[in-house]
Amino acid sequence: MTVPLDAAFARELDARGPLGRFRGEFVVAEADTIYLDGNSLGRLPKRTAERLRDAVDRQWGRRLIRAWGEDWLDAPKRIGGKIARLLGAADDEVIVADSTSVNLFKLALAALAAQPGRTRVVTDDMNFPSDVHVLQSAVALAGDRRLEIVPSADGIHPPVEALAERLDERSALAALSHTAFKSGYVYDMAAVTALAHRAGALMLWDVSHSVGAMPLALDACGVDLAVGCTYKYLNGGPGAPAFLFVRRDLQARLANPLRGWLGQRSPFDFALEIDPRPGIGAFLTGTPPMLSLAAIEPGVDLVLEADVVALREKSVRQTEYLIGLWEALLEPFGFRLNSPRDPRQRGSHVSLGHRDGWRIDQALIEEMGVLPDFRHPDNLRLGIAPIYTTFSEIHEAVTRLVRVMTERRYEKYPAARGTVT
Amino acid sequence: MTVPLDAAFARELDARGPLGRFRGEFVVAEADTIYLDGNSLGRLPKRTAERLRDAVDRQWGRRLIRAWGEDWLDAPKRIGGKIARLLGAADDEVIVADSTSVNLFKLALAALAAQPGRTRVVTDDMNFPSDVHVLQSAVALAGDRRLEIVPSADGIHPPVEALAERLDERSALAALSHTAFKSGYVYDMAAVTALAHRAGALMLWDVSHSVGAMPLALDACGVDLAVGCTYKYLNGGPGAPAFLFVRRDLQARLANPLRGWLGQRSPFDFALEIDPRPGIGAFLTGTPPMLSLAAIEPGVDLVLEADVVALREKSVRQTEYLIGLWEALLEPFGFRLNSPRDPRQRGSHVSLGHRDGWRIDQALIEEMGVLPDFRHPDNLRLGIAPIYTTFSEIHEAVTRLVRVMTERRYEKYPAARGTVT
Repeated sequence: MTVPLDAAFARELDARGPLGRFRGEFVVAEADTIYLDGNSLGRLPKRTAERLRDAVDRQWGRRLIRAWGEDWLDAPKRIGGKIARLLGAADDEVIVADSTSVNLFKLALAALAAQPGRTRVVTDDMNFPSDVHVLQSAVALAGDRRLEIVPSADGIHPPVEALAERLDERSALAALSHTAFKSGYVYDMAAVTALAHRAGALMLWDVSHSVGAMPLALDACGVDLAVGCTYKYLNGGPGAPAFLFVRRDLQARLANPLRGWLGQRSPFDFALEIDPRPGIGAFLTGTPPMLSLAAIEPGVDLVLEADVVALREKSVRQTEYLIGLWEALLEPFGFRLNSPRDPRQRGSHVSLGHRDGWRIDQALIEEMGVLPDFRHPDNLRLGIAPIYTTFSEIHEAVTRLVRVMTERRYEKYPAARGTVT
Repeated sequence: MTVPLDAAFARELDARGPLGRFRGEFVVAEADTIYLDGNSLGRLPKRTAERLRDAVDRQWGRRLIRAWGEDWLDAPKRIGGKIARLLGAADDEVIVADSTSVNLFKLALAALAAQPGRTRVVTDDMNFPSDVHVLQSAVALAGDRRLEIVPSADGIHPPVEALAERLDERSALAALSHTAFKSGYVYDMAAVTALAHRAGALMLWDVSHSVGAMPLALDACGVDLAVGCTYKYLNGGPGAPAFLFVRRDLQARLANPLRGWLGQRSPFDFALEIDPRPGIGAFLTGTPPMLSLAAIEPGVDLVLEADVVALREKSVRQTEYLIGLWEALLEPFGFRLNSPRDPRQRGSHVSLGHRDGWRIDQALIEEMGVLPDFRHPDNLRLGIAPIYTTFSEIHEAVTRLVRVMTERRYEKYPAARGTVT
């Protein structure tokens, strides 16, 4: 694949693209900073800044407790219903709650309880480590269960055949990340879900790195359960509450293992007896962090307006463009493509490996105003959020990366990264 | 107890009080509305509105992903350390995380795992129902365990003697709400903790309705575990993240049953192996909702500045004053005092029962601009937040309540309340 290497070509692509107006919907505070980490934390939509002023000043400040009835109590279902349209799900199959981790924990335990006699949960080592830890936690609590972590050969493509072999009559649940956080590999949702179902296992997808960047079809693929994050391509704000999906006909069969008052049919009766809400609402637990939750909605609205099919189209063209630039300009410096070459298997980020990856990452951030993300051990992750990333930014980021290499700017940075205490 | 019934007396108390300046720290958008629900959702501190503008516009909008290193990642420990001072705990014993329900779930399961051979969790029916549901969830997952819910005689005072009887060699954990959500009863933390310890049980307190309204002494009382809420007397905002406390020498013995990446020693290594942070950080799970979390800190700072001893002193004088007014002006209309008479046993809210309670509540809100809270079946809950509630507001609220009764304003409202769907 060859792409024209001049900046004018990128500008032309930007001028021709149909989604150009959406960049103006986001705060771009530093015009010269190139943000390639929207798959970790999406940009702030201008509407969200306004919405939060309303949530703080009017709802909390003025309406006080009355805002629960007016604005807040319905929000998890209302926003969940909007996210459902991005997932290819019905609006009564999705609700906003807790963190992705807590939601995964709830659904994994619910699945295990619904599959008596089946003792295994199957995942692979390309799953997000936090998901693996949560699955381990669920398995440990469910008693006599085991988590099988199927290894991938190269860390880029998943071990689909080995997963198929491991899925058998002992399997209660298969749980995978639909777009891998490191390589950006996108699983064939229909095919892998069918593998799980053939073995009688339930299928759970974490769609954190997919939702908002590509169309999804949970219902059409027969997916049983899903969780996902709202602060990546949905631009919901740092640590914004996550969502969970339970296929409608499973909602009565699966029980929330972490009951709390908001999952009650009549929470304001304050009854000691558990009497769950019918449907997806039963999977709520405690009081949601309303300011963070309110912040989600404008970002979801923007993705709905832009349309995920158009976003996916742009995203594929952008990752193709970036890979073309890599081939011409970066491979000579020893960068390896750690993402699938086939765009049908690739999400909206591109990973480039380099033995000096961590030092290059620091040089990019400190000296070049390029913000990628770094993933252990040597991986520069370049996230493209098609709703606001431009072709010109991609071109400029590669230009600056080339400068880091030719001027050997990375050499003064330490090679190891610290730990959190 | 008799109190002067004129408004001038209330004004005089307000003028004389040492905490007067703190009301000016809060947004009071409707001067004529009397807010008596700060124990459900505290008012908006003016500083918080500013802090949130910074968190949204500068941290998220401008700094983007860099804000995790600059402002966000340390916040759960930093704010937890400040809350610790309100709890009589060390700063490395408290961390902000998740919701009160999820934290209770984590600590209850951790306690059960640490007490092998002990099969019972003991609570009482004055506990917050959501806490009871969470404990039931934990017990169901721990296998062969049982939750005992000891009934109180009158719903106002707890069954302490019966609790003492139930606590024996089968008890793994006693879990109670320190200030009861309905009656406002405050347990003797030292005495009840000692009862649990005598039986070899761990003691967990939910201090949601205590923290910020009275001094607490978790360490001095030998408390093992605690959880609590930040959006009541700490004024942290709707559904703001909760906190959890684990006594320092238990932190190595107890394991977080819900592992996630933020509880890892080196989360950014993205290792599949679980390697928990040492200390209280191990009890984190997923990514916290940062906007809601950032909102907590200014409210906590204000309570620290006002000092909980001074706040408690004012709170006792205010609930005494309110009970004096009740006795003179409201008891004749059939209101019963559903809170303890002894101020040492009473938190910062006063419950008044009335057979037309729900209708009276509606009339107060709709026609009188008084916002109390209602608790099933007939309970008007009048919350006093000493950091901003004035004696004059208490006087005026009672005056308006008398008007609702003399003018029979409540009669046009329905007697039953609806359910959430």
